[in-house]
Amino acid sequence: MDKPVLALVGATGAVGTTMINIMDSRESVPWGEIRLIASARSAGKVLKVRGEDVTVLELKPEVFDGVDIAMFDVPDEVSAEWAPVAAARGAVAVDNSGAFRMDPDVPLVVPEVNADKVTDRPKGIIANPNCTTLSMMAAMGALHREFGLEALVVSSYQAASGAGQPGVDQLYAEIEALAGKQVGSVSGDVAGVLKEAGVPVGADSPFPAPLALNVVPWAGSLKDDGWSSEELKVRNESRKILGIPELKVSATCVRVPVVTTHALAIHATFSGEVSVEAARKVLSAQPTIVVKDDPAAGEWPTPADAVGGDPTVVGRIRQSLDFPNTLELFVCGDNLRKGAALNTYEVAETVAAAG
Amino acid sequence: MDKPVLALVGATGAVGTTMINIMDSRESVPWGEIRLIASARSAGKVLKVRGEDVTVLELKPEVFDGVDIAMFDVPDEVSAEWAPVAAARGAVAVDNSGAFRMDPDVPLVVPEVNADKVTDRPKGIIANPNCTTLSMMAAMGALHREFGLEALVVSSYQAASGAGQPGVDQLYAEIEALAGKQVGSVSGDVAGVLKEAGVPVGADSPFPAPLALNVVPWAGSLKDDGWSSEELKVRNESRKILGIPELKVSATCVRVPVVTTHALAIHATFSGEVSVEAARKVLSAQPTIVVKDDPAAGEWPTPADAVGGDPTVVGRIRQSLDFPNTLELFVCGDNLRKGAALNTYEVAETVAAAG
Repeated sequence: MDKPVLALVGATGAVGTTMINIMDSRESVPWGEIRLIASARSAGKVLKVRGEDVTVLELKPEVFDGVDIAMFDVPDEVSAEWAPVAAARGAVAVDNSGAFRMDPDVPLVVPEVNADKVTDRPKGIIANPNCTTLSMMAAMGALHREFGLEALVVSSYQAASGAGQPGVDQLYAEIEALAGKQVGSVSGDVAGVLKEAGVPVGADSPFPAPLALNVVPWAGSLKDDGWSSEELKVRNESRKILGIPELKVSATCVRVPVVTTHALAIHATFSGEVSVEAARKVLSAQPTIVVKDDPAAGEWPTPADAVGGDPTVVGRIRQSLDFPNTLELFVCGDNLRKGAALNTYEVAETVAAAG
Repeated sequence: MDKPVLALVGATGAVGTTMINIMDSRESVPWGEIRLIASARSAGKVLKVRGEDVTVLELKPEVFDGVDIAMFDVPDEVSAEWAPVAAARGAVAVDNSGAFRMDPDVPLVVPEVNADKVTDRPKGIIANPNCTTLSMMAAMGALHREFGLEALVVSSYQAASGAGQPGVDQLYAEIEALAGKQVGSVSGDVAGVLKEAGVPVGADSPFPAPLALNVVPWAGSLKDDGWSSEELKVRNESRKILGIPELKVSATCVRVPVVTTHALAIHATFSGEVSVEAARKVLSAQPTIVVKDDPAAGEWPTPADAVGGDPTVVGRIRQSLDFPNTLELFVCGDNLRKGAALNTYEVAETVAAAG
C-alpha cells in the first residue's frame, strides 16, 4: 500500500512552523508526500521539511486532490470554508480551529483519551481541542479512567502565545519598555510607561490591558452571563472529549505574562475514593505525562519547565482537606505543541494508523 | 481624655513605610504622639510623619511605656518576643506577623467582617491576617452575611512584593536581564539568561524558580501532605475571620510576575440561592469594595487597577453553570495596603474608637 499523502494548511504560521519542527524531530514519519499549503501571500515560499525543500502551494480546491490527511491551522472562518472542501476531495481534515469542535458529527480528539473516535467522522472532519482544554486532557483522561471524574474547577494561567505571534511580540515589547522603570509597586502606571515608549495598550494591543507586570482575567470573546468564550470552551470541550456530558465545570481564564505554556490550577472531584499516591501512580504511567511533584526538593511544574517539550508536566498533587474524593493539581503544557501542533499531528498519525 | 499614643514597630520596612504613607494621606488621625520603633540598625533615623520629624527609637521594653496601641510589622520571631512585651507594658499590640494568628486567645480581625472582636483580646494582642487571605475577606464577608458561605475553591495570582522588598528587587532585576532577549517561546531558557546576566536564580533568589516570564506554584514553606503554608493560611484564617469553623476551603497559591497586588480567582458556594445581580448589589454597597465588572466595555479587575489604592476591586462575577448556589469572582487587592499596612492601621483605628 502506498504511504498516505499529508497536507499542512497554514504551513507558514506559528503552529504550522511547530508542526514542521515536530515532523523534523521524529525518527520516522508514516507519510509519502508532505504537501505545504498557505494563503496566496505565502505561496511560492520554499520551506525545509525533513531535509527536503518543499514549495508552499496556494490554498485552492485542487491542491487537496490525492491528499489522504489534511491538517488545518488557520482562522475559524478559513477552516469553516476549506475543511469541507478537503473532505469533499477525499482527505480527512484534522482541524485546529474552533469551527467544528462542538459539531455533533465531528469528533473532538485527544489520542490519549479518545483515539477510537477518529474513525467516527461522518463529515470527514476531526477537530482538535482548544489549547487551554488540551493542556489538562491527558491528565484528566487518565484520572477519569481510574476514579470517575464528576466535577472540575479550573483557573488558568495562560501564555501570550495563545494569542498568536502578535501576542508574543506584544509581551516582548512591553517587557522591553518596562525594563529598568521600576513601576507597578506604589503606582499602577504600567500603562503610562508603555504609552510613553510607544507600545500599544488596550484596543491597539492583542491584549485588552497591559500584560507585563500584570495579569488579565479575560481571554476570548464575551458570551452569555459574563462568561468568556475561552471559559465555555474549557467546559464544553472537556465534556465532549472525556465523554461525560454531565461533567460539572467552572473555569476562570486568566492571561499571564508568560510567553509560551499554559498552566492550570485544577480542583477535580471524582465518584470514587482518591489518594495522592494512587493519582501519582496513574499519572506516572502515562507516556505523555511527566510528574514533577516533590516540594521538599523544590520540584513542581512551571511554564519554564514545560515549554518546548511534548509532555504535560503535572505536580502539586494534593488531596483536598475538606472536599471528599477531590484532588488539587497544577498542570503545565506547551500551548503551541501539545496545545495545538503536537495534538493535531498525533491525531493525523492516529488516522493514518487506523488506515 | 488624652488622645491615644500610637507606636509603629518596624517603621522603616516596606509595610511600615506604607503605614506612614497611609497616616500622611488621612485628613485627620486620632493619635496624640506617634512613636516610630525599629531595630538598633535603623534607630536614630529621622522620618517625616504628617509633616513632622520623628526620630526612630530602638526596640526596647521601655519604648512601650505610655503607648496605647502598638502596630507591629516585623518577622514572626520578633513579634513572638516583643508583642507580649508591649502588651505587658499596657499597649494593645496589633500584629501583622504570623506568630499569633491562629492563637485562640488572639482575635484575627478584618474590620469590615469582625470589628466587634477587637475588644475580645485576653492577651492584649490582635492579629492581622495573611495578605492573600485578606485580599478576599471584605468581599467574602459581605457575601457570607447575605448568602451564607459554605465552601471556597481559590487560586491565587500573588505578587512579588508578598516576599518583601527582596522579592520586588528580584523581579525588577529579572525583567531587566530578560528585556530584548526574546526567550521563553521555543526554549525555556529563562534561567540561563538570568544566570548569564548575574541575576540570582533558585536557592540564591527570594523565589524558588525564575519569576519573570514564568509562574511559580509555590509560596511559603512545606506543610503536611504537599500543602504550602500559604495555602493552609488561606484555609485556616478564612475560617477564623468569617467565624465558620466548618468552612470548606481548597487553595492553590501561585506566584506571578506582578510587583504588587494579589489577585484571586474564587469559586464560592453558599447555603442560599445566589445571583450575579444580588451579589453585585451586595458588593457595591461595601465602602471598601469597588465593583469593576463590565466585560463588554473591557472592565474587569487587574493588579494594575488595584495597586496603590485602598479598595478591593471585584469583577468577573458569574453564576456557576453547573454548581448550585455558586458564584465565580476575580478579586484584586493591594497586598501592601489592604493586605498588610492598611488593615493593620484600620484595626488600630477600630481599637482606638472602641476606647
